[in-house]
Amino acid sequence: MSQRQISTSEISSHNKDTDCWIVVDGQVWDITKFAPEHPGGPGIIYKYAGRDATQAYNEIHSPSIIKNNLPKDALKGTLDTTTVTKEWATPLANETPQSAPASAAEKPPLDSIINTHDFELAAQHSATAKTWAFYSSACNDLITKDLNASLFTRVLFRPRVMRKVDKISPATSILGHDVSFPLMISPAAMARLIHPDGELAIARATKSQSIIQCISNNASYSASEIVSQDVVTDYPFFFQLYVDRQRHKSEALLRKIHSHKNITGIFVTTDAAAAGKREADERVKADETIQNPMMTSNATNDKKGGGYGRLMGSFIDPNLNWADITWLRSQTKLPLVLKGIMSADDVRLALEHGLDGVVLSNHGGRNLDTSPPGLLVLMEIHARFPEIITQHHPRSAAVRQGRARPFSIFVDGGVRRGTDILKLVCLGAVAAGVGRPALFATGYGQEGVEHLIEMLKDEFETAMRNIGVTSIDECSPDYINSGAIDKWVVKRREHPYAVSWASSGRQSKL
Amino acid sequence: MSQRQISTSEISSHNKDTDCWIVVDGQVWDITKFAPEHPGGPGIIYKYAGRDATQAYNEIHSPSIIKNNLPKDALKGTLDTTTVTKEWATPLANETPQSAPASAAEKPPLDSIINTHDFELAAQHSATAKTWAFYSSACNDLITKDLNASLFTRVLFRPRVMRKVDKISPATSILGHDVSFPLMISPAAMARLIHPDGELAIARATKSQSIIQCISNNASYSASEIVSQDVVTDYPFFFQLYVDRQRHKSEALLRKIHSHKNITGIFVTTDAAAAGKREADERVKADETIQNPMMTSNATNDKKGGGYGRLMGSFIDPNLNWADITWLRSQTKLPLVLKGIMSADDVRLALEHGLDGVVLSNHGGRNLDTSPPGLLVLMEIHARFPEIITQHHPRSAAVRQGRARPFSIFVDGGVRRGTDILKLVCLGAVAAGVGRPALFATGYGQEGVEHLIEMLKDEFETAMRNIGVTSIDECSPDYINSGAIDKWVVKRREHPYAVSWASSGRQSKL
Amino acid sequence: MSQRQISTSEISSHNKDTDCWIVVDGQVWDITKFAPEHPGGPGIIYKYAGRDATQAYNEIHSPSIIKNNLPKDALKGTLDTTTVTKEWATPLANETPQSAPASAAEKPPLDSIINTHDFELAAQHSATAKTWAFYSSACNDLITKDLNASLFTRVLFRPRVMRKVDKISPATSILGHDVSFPLMISPAAMARLIHPDGELAIARATKSQSIIQCISNNASYSASEIVSQDVVTDYPFFFQLYVDRQRHKSEALLRKIHSHKNITGIFVTTDAAAAGKREADERVKADETIQNPMMTSNATNDKKGGGYGRLMGSFIDPNLNWADITWLRSQTKLPLVLKGIMSADDVRLALEHGLDGVVLSNHGGRNLDTSPPGLLVLMEIHARFPEIITQHHPRSAAVRQGRARPFSIFVDGGVRRGTDILKLVCLGAVAAGVGRPALFATGYGQEGVEHLIEMLKDEFETAMRNIGVTSIDECSPDYINSGAIDKWVVKRREHPYAVSWASSGRQSKL
Amino acid sequence: MSQRQISTSEISSHNKDTDCWIVVDGQVWDITKFAPEHPGGPGIIYKYAGRDATQAYNEIHSPSIIKNNLPKDALKGTLDTTTVTKEWATPLANETPQSAPASAAEKPPLDSIINTHDFELAAQHSATAKTWAFYSSACNDLITKDLNASLFTRVLFRPRVMRKVDKISPATSILGHDVSFPLMISPAAMARLIHPDGELAIARATKSQSIIQCISNNASYSASEIVSQDVVTDYPFFFQLYVDRQRHKSEALLRKIHSHKNITGIFVTTDAAAAGKREADERVKADETIQNPMMTSNATNDKKGGGYGRLMGSFIDPNLNWADITWLRSQTKLPLVLKGIMSADDVRLALEHGLDGVVLSNHGGRNLDTSPPGLLVLMEIHARFPEIITQHHPRSAAVRQGRARPFSIFVDGGVRRGTDILKLVCLGAVAAGVGRPALFATGYGQEGVEHLIEMLKDEFETAMRNIGVTSIDECSPDYINSGAIDKWVVKRREHPYAVSWASSGRQSKL
Repeated sequence: MSQRQISTSEISSHNKDTDCWIVVDGQVWDITKFAPEHPGGPGIIYKYAGRDATQAYNEIHSPSIIKNNLPKDALKGTLDTTTVTKEWATPLANETPQSAPASAAEKPPLDSIINTHDFELAAQHSATAKTWAFYSSACNDLITKDLNASLFTRVLFRPRVMRKVDKISPATSILGHDVSFPLMISPAAMARLIHPDGELAIARATKSQSIIQCISNNASYSASEIVSQDVVTDYPFFFQLYVDRQRHKSEALLRKIHSHKNITGIFVTTDAAAAGKREADERVKADETIQNPMMTSNATNDKKGGGYGRLMGSFIDPNLNWADITWLRSQTKLPLVLKGIMSADDVRLALEHGLDGVVLSNHGGRNLDTSPPGLLVLMEIHARFPEIITQHHPRSAAVRQGRARPFSIFVDGGVRRGTDILKLVCLGAVAAGVGRPALFATGYGQEGVEHLIEMLKDEFETAMRNIGVTSIDECSPDYINSGAIDKWVVKRREHPYAVSWASSGRQSKL
Repeated sequence: MSQRQISTSEISSHNKDTDCWIVVDGQVWDITKFAPEHPGGPGIIYKYAGRDATQAYNEIHSPSIIKNNLPKDALKGTLDTTTVTKEWATPLANETPQSAPASAAEKPPLDSIINTHDFELAAQHSATAKTWAFYSSACNDLITKDLNASLFTRVLFRPRVMRKVDKISPATSILGHDVSFPLMISPAAMARLIHPDGELAIARATKSQSIIQCISNNASYSASEIVSQDVVTDYPFFFQLYVDRQRHKSEALLRKIHSHKNITGIFVTTDAAAAGKREADERVKADETIQNPMMTSNATNDKKGGGYGRLMGSFIDPNLNWADITWLRSQTKLPLVLKGIMSADDVRLALEHGLDGVVLSNHGGRNLDTSPPGLLVLMEIHARFPEIITQHHPRSAAVRQGRARPFSIFVDGGVRRGTDILKLVCLGAVAAGVGRPALFATGYGQEGVEHLIEMLKDEFETAMRNIGVTSIDECSPDYINSGAIDKWVVKRREHPYAVSWASSGRQSKL
Repeated sequence: MSQRQISTSEISSHNKDTDCWIVVDGQVWDITKFAPEHPGGPGIIYKYAGRDATQAYNEIHSPSIIKNNLPKDALKGTLDTTTVTKEWATPLANETPQSAPASAAEKPPLDSIINTHDFELAAQHSATAKTWAFYSSACNDLITKDLNASLFTRVLFRPRVMRKVDKISPATSILGHDVSFPLMISPAAMARLIHPDGELAIARATKSQSIIQCISNNASYSASEIVSQDVVTDYPFFFQLYVDRQRHKSEALLRKIHSHKNITGIFVTTDAAAAGKREADERVKADETIQNPMMTSNATNDKKGGGYGRLMGSFIDPNLNWADITWLRSQTKLPLVLKGIMSADDVRLALEHGLDGVVLSNHGGRNLDTSPPGLLVLMEIHARFPEIITQHHPRSAAVRQGRARPFSIFVDGGVRRGTDILKLVCLGAVAAGVGRPALFATGYGQEGVEHLIEMLKDEFETAMRNIGVTSIDECSPDYINSGAIDKWVVKRREHPYAVSWASSGRQSKL
Repeated sequence: MSQRQISTSEISSHNKDTDCWIVVDGQVWDITKFAPEHPGGPGIIYKYAGRDATQAYNEIHSPSIIKNNLPKDALKGTLDTTTVTKEWATPLANETPQSAPASAAEKPPLDSIINTHDFELAAQHSATAKTWAFYSSACNDLITKDLNASLFTRVLFRPRVMRKVDKISPATSILGHDVSFPLMISPAAMARLIHPDGELAIARATKSQSIIQCISNNASYSASEIVSQDVVTDYPFFFQLYVDRQRHKSEALLRKIHSHKNITGIFVTTDAAAAGKREADERVKADETIQNPMMTSNATNDKKGGGYGRLMGSFIDPNLNWADITWLRSQTKLPLVLKGIMSADDVRLALEHGLDGVVLSNHGGRNLDTSPPGLLVLMEIHARFPEIITQHHPRSAAVRQGRARPFSIFVDGGVRRGTDILKLVCLGAVAAGVGRPALFATGYGQEGVEHLIEMLKDEFETAMRNIGVTSIDECSPDYINSGAIDKWVVKRREHPYAVSWASSGRQSKL
């Protein structure tokens, strides 16, 4: 590796998209070739072309990433610090409105935060505009994102009173691992945007609170960094996999994952065949591009805007299909769960293909607007294939007696209250996942995530007592009144409008 | 009892949570041990550590409470008034925003108040912030609280015209007591927060208007004080009981209640197994704690905030269960009603266990958000166990002919209009209860509560005439069009999503 | 009659509620005895005690009313105009905010008004606060008032295209009288509040536009004055009757009505058994009372407020019942229609009792909040007693062939568009009525009412063409999609929640 | 043609509606006879009486129109430019608020526009008030206009995952013409109001993006001008026909249309029997008229206001009916589609009458408020006449095998997202149309329309992948969950409220 001392004036001359150097932690990199493939889009890199990008880099990335991902010859040398001028050291004028965090004073103290909405508001006011846009945005008109949350509010409990509920236990197990209550941290990308500890903090909090984190394929820190922290080396994690268009890359990634014995389950994302248009995210990027005086060509001028989300997903294989289950099984012995299922039919297919479970999820409403909330899909299973739950639920009599294979159903999207989690569990979910709330809580580091989990657990326990159950085993649909949303449950295999002209269509081949 | 004269400087030195004296009405108390058990939370007490708390105390509590509840050795002596300095006499600077009542000028004159909403607005603007938060708050997202009221607006009447309705009578009887119309004042805690007369005023108003008050277990005045007022000694009351974790305390309380012959019914609350998170209430407390310079340790720094509601419920036994009915019956010969029933199944159980009635209630939406309004539960009874009403309603032919035992169904939650009461009565309720509206009206003392009752009675009578009935006996479901909310009525015993995996669950054991 | 000249100083001395003189048009009246019975409440009169009330009187009343209603000895003499001082001539300082009309400049020109909402806005901004309150107010929470209008917006048409619709005719007949389209001006009280011509203007407009006015029992002008105007003496009117507690008064009134040959139908109001609490109306009165320095006693201080509406209805007989139909028939040979029917059962009773029709109406939502809109009742007839329409509609084959008696169904409440009228006609209504819109349009006198009728007719014709019908005869339910509100239609005689305990109730006796 | 030089003073003297000259492009026209027939209403012309109207004319009209439509003797001569004074050259003072476009600075750059709502906002802020009113307005209370869009948001997808969706094709064919995806530009009048290129720009964009434009009968440019542009002479177009009251005019128009071989289909509008009251449009006109000091007579003073829409439709024949299909077929050999069908019955009639297809449309909610969205009509076909789709859909097996005639169903109204288009296609539509969005995009010329189409296509493709289909052939109702709006689907031939009294009505004769 070159250790040549390079002056700031030389670095400054490589300030075009066709010849682009940046400095990170004192090292000078030629990222001309890499920039177009940058998961966060090339624009943010070109902004620092010929400049020192250390601060911006560290806001998002783990220190190891640039070294592991760039070829050795991209390292041109080290910054000659004797040549640093005042101008060089001055931050970009237009950084402030976009990337400067709001003053700490605006962030309310953690002990004034008493629900997930408080965490969201705190993040909105203290994160950078781009982080907020990336985290909070969803596809198109946000109909699914909003529906994810609002459907829960329209489902009522049917509480029973006069039961001994002093001693209750919300504890359960997920894919064989004991947890304090049925909550999972869903995979959500780039937690470092909101706090330097990012996913490391989430990991430590899940252990201290005895729940499980499913690590994002696009985490700011590598899965290895996350699960190898001293304090969690003996604690289980799941890993979310985006199958790469280049399958050998996924195979290599899985081998690396397997080297960590505390990664104990693989969640393969299936609902990212195409990245949705997350308009808030796209709009912030569009502004940024305009402010960039270096963008002489408009080859990178993407008419769609420039959201992180869309740009980050380019490596995901849209051809992943049921036949690939065989390949996946050949690559891992770990429990295998499909994440992003949005129809009862696909749940049944997942069971038939030998999967260990599914996450009913619409990717937080980020990929397809008006896709159905997981809660509706869960109800559809009851209406159309009830045996998937009655026979294959890990707690069912059939499974306990060895007559049926366990199949775990997770649900995420819109979960904001302990009552939401309890409703899902009553309807047969093994656990509920939270994504954005965990990111927002990460703004307060490990302590914030712990507080989030405690709050949800407290709400969950309060609701358990108030509906009259003392353990997860007692939860059942009898406690649920879904009358207000039953209209959305497609009850029969044959849709009322099913027609025959499409009989040669894909669905009949499955 | 010590009558030692104690100087203000000595008192001021006991200003820590680990050594905490306060002055009330010239008496000096060591409340170090008691403070953590204070129903209103320790924070409010610590705020006055080493100071005179007379004013704050009197705003909420009856004079007798501190003497009856603290051990004798907690009384350290009497304030040496010769040592009172100007600084001692100055109110805490930070009291104003929290506890000072708004100027009287902001409270509209009573004769400008023409509905319950006016009373609520008046309370919002004239009560202290903490009182408003405690009274008005409900659990989590207020979905149940709002639904309680809004469901009534979606139920239409089916009025009949051309009937002789000049002379009508809204009079009826409740558990054998004649009342002017089917309204009950539901138990609601700490009415003194809004007016010095508190529950005393409510009691006097119920007599003058011939309705019945169900006295709260947590009233500012003791039940004895309330029912022993000269003017009401011959007038009936009901008493709400929270069964204590220490049963002997409840037994003692019931003995005391029985010493008052005009307490003629016991309403045992069943929907407080766990106190809900009443966020508005919690938030005000959180602020208060911050302003308290004396809180050096954070042992009392409760992450959940510090609402009155949650802290006040710590003594309630979450293990109260159907088997306890036998014990309850052994402790009282009075009619026994279960309050807080939220499912038709539990209504049936109450009937089978020999209770005299139930209050369909969700505690004003304060304990479990998305629990069902009593109106829905009443409709569910019709749909699933109609015989509970057709056979056991006190006005039914079967009861009048001695073929069936009377069973009285009350409903509270969201009742804001005389029309709401009439709808409940038409659907078979014996009476409707109002809680918060009575508290808000108490802001105007006895006259305010009387005005509230008159208004509701006037609305009730107007509606009777306009639907074409002249007596409570004529009210029936024929006058109700509930089409807009029928979707929420669970019609069959078997829930559409009922599954068998939970067949070992609690509900099958009942 | 005394013609004594009375000085202003003498008049001023009679300025108490127990001794109250006022001047109207130069005549001095002692209204001490009459004031408490004033339909508009005594407060407004006491305000002018000892003063000249000419202007306030003329804003509301026809000149003949005071002479016809007060006994002769109440006339004390005539104002001695030589004694009028500047102070006497000065209007009351506090009149302005309540009763002064807004400046004419605020009233938009008539040709800028293109729908009924425009008329309503113009009235809101140009009428006095009290007039606006009286006209616009409705009972309690305005749920029925709002539902009256909003239900129409949720009913869709099922239009047919490709039909010859150049020449169409919206003409029809109502109770045997030809009208230009199926619109009736519903009775609405005191049109003079908004324009000096009041009901006189409405009458002239109905003739020029060939529709029919149903004159209010409480019109500002007497029915005689209205129907005897030169221009309309040959044009038909209907008369609304409130049956008086003193039946002989109603009999006398009917005799007077019969003296006018162009009054050709009697509409007996049945939905005013009890006046609802019209809160906006009550509140304005309450203010007025406060401003009255003469009200030394509070005997007239009505806790309910003091709306015109409630006070005006005190003479109405709440004992009017089906047995009275015989009496009514003995008093008039004119077609007899019951106004204010709110259930299909009562429509059937009206048919069985030989009435000529009904107006499905809830009194503009003014008497019973959450009473059903007429549109729902019309749908209920189809669902439960369809023969009332299929056999007895004046246009039905059975009636035309003499096999059945004609029975006319009118609907009012919330009608704001020609499309609303067409929907009602398609569902079998003979005509739709408008009340408030006509009052608001009267603000522009005869020309305003004509413009209102033209607008609605134009909207009606446009909609006829666009659904594909050329005459009223072709209108049918086939053009209506009521799917969004079908949930509110009670389909069976037996209500889903019907119970037997109330079997001794009134409804079974009918 | 007269080429007489005419002075400005002579021109100025012809400034009355009874003697009205205007100057356009240096030519002096006597438009006294023509003005009353002006599609945009006479008011706008009278405003320029005796003045130079060039700028106002060119904002809306193609240069050829005045020459082709006025008789030769209307040309009085040419403007003597030597007589032009400063006053003559000054624009009308009152033009600015109405017709001046907002400053270009307010129009956001095209690349910041990422959805159709952005285009709408841009148009709202940059078009003249009158253009915005004409484009955006709809009938009465906008219920249908809003419902058109909002119904789409309540229909959910039922996505399938784990399918190979890397390579997908949204391509399809419409009436035999290949298109890049199932989008059509619906006919919408007067695109030049927002951009000088108007429909010319739309035409060029449709070719470059491979979709099809249906040219409006009332386009600013003649169809000939549009389809004869060099770049599109080889590209197919459809033409919308309003059948004229004078049929020979329609015949002549069709002959002209046939002279262009690239006009390949005729869409006959059927839902304009009567122009609706587009209130926003009417209101702006009303203002304009007021500002016109020349309007001495009020013959043109229309009480309804003066919207372009209503005035432009006066030539349309409201007597067009099914019998005219024979005449239409005799006039053209091109595929014939009926546009504006709003009931399944009329779809069936169209099929029976040999039409090639229908556009389910309510004219953008502009003619009949509360008419049903096309989406509902499409669902009604499935519910009542499913064979129209299962047997006659151009992609059905029956059509492909020659057993049935192809029949194409288009839908427009409220389409704002690629997901909307996909929902319609899944339910059997051949293509979806967009009207207003195309007009708004035209504000940016050809590039704007191209951007619009690209955006919708991108949204469409993303949604295809995310529901799991790779071609239009695979789309089916199985992917649709319409539970929330099924209540609006009239399922049976017999309406629940169908009655017999109207049995002699029109519908039975069909």
